[in-house]
Amino acid sequence: MAKTYSCGLDAAIDVVGGKWKPLVLWTLAVAPRRFGELRREVEGVSEKVLTQQLRELERDGLVHREVHDEVPPKVVYSLTPLGASLERALGPLGDWGEEHLDHIVAART
Amino acid sequence: MAKTYSCGLDAAIDVVGGKWKPLVLWTLAVAPRRFGELRREVEGVSEKVLTQQLRELERDGLVHREVHDEVPPKVVYSLTPLGASLERALGPLGDWGEEHLDHIVAART
Repeated sequence: MAKTYSCGLDAAIDVVGGKWKPLVLWTLAVAPRRFGELRREVEGVSEKVLTQQLRELERDGLVHREVHDEVPPKVVYSLTPLGASLERALGPLGDWGEEHLDHIVAART
Repeated sequence: MAKTYSCGLDAAIDVVGGKWKPLVLWTLAVAPRRFGELRREVEGVSEKVLTQQLRELERDGLVHREVHDEVPPKVVYSLTPLGASLERALGPLGDWGEEHLDHIVAART
């Protein structure tokens, strides 16, 4: 069954939702990463959850997973053009959060 | 205990997270609304959930709740300047979702 969305923002937040996906996109926007590198850089994420998030990002066409034929196999994750465009669209939201971080933390303490 | 964030984007998504808050901000950006109006415009939200979301938005300083001394009391919700700035920061994300809506729906069907 097709999922329905009330607007584009609803759909975008569904795609990028959850605590980790924006951080994964942001990290991959700097440079492609192997799984272990990604896990170290996205602090606090478990192996299981990161695997799941990467699968969803791949299914949604935001992340590309490339297996290099080596022993042991080298798996590299990178942003697709669609993923890169989403990461750019998240920029202003990240800037807003950076600017108002103290206020947000204070309101929640 | 103060909550810690790994970056501004993490904090912004925590503030605006969930299915309804972006839609509430977007609706209030058009004009201030009474509770009943808001509930009709944010399609599919329950009274209980909308009440809770509005309380959190008020606590975080994004939404202002004004009670007019009438019988029955008239309660009007509006964006604070901080809420308006967050709504603007969500703009590019909404545009991205609008542009790629078909792709998103197809990937999830």
